[in-house]
Amino acid sequence: MDRRAEILEAAAKSFSLFGYKATTMDQVAKIANVGKGTIYTFFANKEELFNAIVVGMIDEMRCEAEAAAVPDASFEENAHARLMSILKFRTTHRLYAKLIDEGKEIRTPAVQEVLADIETQIIQFIAEKIEKGIVRGEVKPCNTELVAYLLFKSYMALVVDWERTHDRELAESEITDLLSSTIFKSLIR
Amino acid sequence: MDRRAEILEAAAKSFSLFGYKATTMDQVAKIANVGKGTIYTFFANKEELFNAIVVGMIDEMRCEAEAAAVPDASFEENAHARLMSILKFRTTHRLYAKLIDEGKEIRTPAVQEVLADIETQIIQFIAEKIEKGIVRGEVKPCNTELVAYLLFKSYMALVVDWERTHDRELAESEITDLLSSTIFKSLIR
Repeated sequence: MDRRAEILEAAAKSFSLFGYKATTMDQVAKIANVGKGTIYTFFANKEELFNAIVVGMIDEMRCEAEAAAVPDASFEENAHARLMSILKFRTTHRLYAKLIDEGKEIRTPAVQEVLADIETQIIQFIAEKIEKGIVRGEVKPCNTELVAYLLFKSYMALVVDWERTHDRELAESEITDLLSSTIFKSLIR
Repeated sequence: MDRRAEILEAAAKSFSLFGYKATTMDQVAKIANVGKGTIYTFFANKEELFNAIVVGMIDEMRCEAEAAAVPDASFEENAHARLMSILKFRTTHRLYAKLIDEGKEIRTPAVQEVLADIETQIIQFIAEKIEKGIVRGEVKPCNTELVAYLLFKSYMALVVDWERTHDRELAESEITDLLSSTIFKSLIR
């Protein structure tokens, strides 16, 4: 592994364990077992290092979401599979989960900005899929940005928020039944 | 005005100004210009006083939401009018707005519980309206609890969350266009 990759791995570890605010360049240097000067030859400051990590994480999330889709499945099936994959990633990826915690508990502004940016990219990703569905003739023409936003927020509400105010999680079949008969029904040709 | 009403008015003022956590029975007594003992003849403790205030506030919100509906309008028009009224109430009612702040900033557990409870009652209110729409034959039979939840969360996302991550508010016509062509379209017979 080259130096840059070693530093990125160490930084990802540190951000995942201690969060953004509590991570220092000294810590990353120690974990990577390199001098602090070496880090600065690759990254000007903690922000740059963090951004590089987050870009990598978003790539990973997108890759998993793509892998969740099946070539011949319907738009609805694949949209559901991709969104469930993204929401699973949100809670199982150590760094993502840590950032959500930090954004909520410590309210670090840099972290809240990054979380908002990731959300924007997820919605952009969904909008591209809707756009492709329209081109393929599977989805009715619509305001792709707003529909993507509505879909993402609906999944967040049903998968993430629901169990916070109810004693149980919603079953996946309850979620698909609801969205099949509402949002997806109106989208699909 | 009777004593109990005076105390409730004073308490509403104190909770609105200082929040739940920072309000004391002494403060309420001072604002109401009664002895602390008088308050205890009506309310056993701060929790009881707070609950009485919140019950009154929910009645007020429900009343405004009902007033926003028009007798001969469609289910969709009235659902939209009621939900917009509720979301407006959320930000313009001093106590409600203060509780949202307190729940977010100070994370007072009692306040977070009350906010969750209010949300549950709003969703219950929407579910009742959907139920009536089904009985009238205007709305297709559906899981009213889940559809009410989806509708409320969609309005929250479009009216409240959107402008936090975008540079602008959504116009009301953008919201009605989107929901008319998605959720409402699939609901209405």
